[in-house]
Amino acid sequence: MQYPEPIAKLIDSYMKLPGIGEKTATRLAFYTLGMDQKDVEDFAKSLLSVKKDLHYCSICGFITEDDPCPICRDKSRDRSTILVVEHSQDIMAMERMHEYHGLYHVLHGSISPSEGTGPMDINIPALLKRLQKNTEVKEIIVATNASLDGETTAQYLAKLIKPAGIRVTRLAHGLSAGANIDYTDEVTLFRAVQGRTEM
Amino acid sequence: MQYPEPIAKLIDSYMKLPGIGEKTATRLAFYTLGMDQKDVEDFAKSLLSVKKDLHYCSICGFITEDDPCPICRDKSRDRSTILVVEHSQDIMAMERMHEYHGLYHVLHGSISPSEGTGPMDINIPALLKRLQKNTEVKEIIVATNASLDGETTAQYLAKLIKPAGIRVTRLAHGLSAGANIDYTDEVTLFRAVQGRTEM
Repeated sequence: MQYPEPIAKLIDSYMKLPGIGEKTATRLAFYTLGMDQKDVEDFAKSLLSVKKDLHYCSICGFITEDDPCPICRDKSRDRSTILVVEHSQDIMAMERMHEYHGLYHVLHGSISPSEGTGPMDINIPALLKRLQKNTEVKEIIVATNASLDGETTAQYLAKLIKPAGIRVTRLAHGLSAGANIDYTDEVTLFRAVQGRTEM
Repeated sequence: MQYPEPIAKLIDSYMKLPGIGEKTATRLAFYTLGMDQKDVEDFAKSLLSVKKDLHYCSICGFITEDDPCPICRDKSRDRSTILVVEHSQDIMAMERMHEYHGLYHVLHGSISPSEGTGPMDINIPALLKRLQKNTEVKEIIVATNASLDGETTAQYLAKLIKPAGIRVTRLAHGLSAGANIDYTDEVTLFRAVQGRTEM
């Protein structure tokens, strides 16, 4: 005996999402069945809307409804600095900090030899084109993740861009706010000691 | 800075699902952005379809596209036995067993004093009406969950139905298939000893 087709199809759709297996998908599908009609309609509408109304900014690669994105259009932002991130979500994290007022560039991934992702597979060519066109850029802040792939990407970008006379910096590594020395892993501790600053 | 509206709305929708917080919802929304157009369209369509095309069977309460459901319509099934479950999903589990050929009744929940759910809040009145109309029913198998609420519901049903001269049985409690005695909890072990059978 099979589930009725509508729910079987919804289970299939939920299973296409990352980290959702058959059990969870079934639970979500039955939950959907009991949801408000309006909530389900809004859900369906917003699914279609992200595909229809959102695009990547042709300059920086950030998700946006209008091209170029609001950040690239914003005349008040400092055009001499570009902060490079792996994903659009990372821009949101930076903006929540309220302390960075330059521009961004989204790579949509990182260089990953283990997954076969090379420099040309992510949004690096667009960054180089941007630097050639905009001679006002003085600094590239590499804010890739503190993972092996993120580090590889950072090193690659530094080698590529520094010869052009543009300053390339990367985020500091060390203790996170409120961190307990006792619970901090060795790599983080090593980097915190290496990067110690004068008091 | 806010997320562009389409993605913010999709994050909100994902957050309405059980067990999905803001972080996971954001991850799912960005994942959706990168999904195949067709998969997203199917997803939206199936969401609307479960609300539009699925109903509860007017006889047994199982989800179905047509009323009555295929099981209630099936003339080959044994109409003298009704197996009572908490949720539609439980019927699927029973059917996977391929050994039960009677009818079902879905309660859509269980009696839960702690959550204020009484007998009239779940699909019990419909079960009683069914028993009054169908004098051919000889046995009610109570297959509620082996939880406190499931037990309460089972006891309530037995008290209600037995006086009408209908046999009320419940599923056996004991070791699950492949269980290791050493790792079995005390309650299960106690029930397995209580319910021991002659060899």
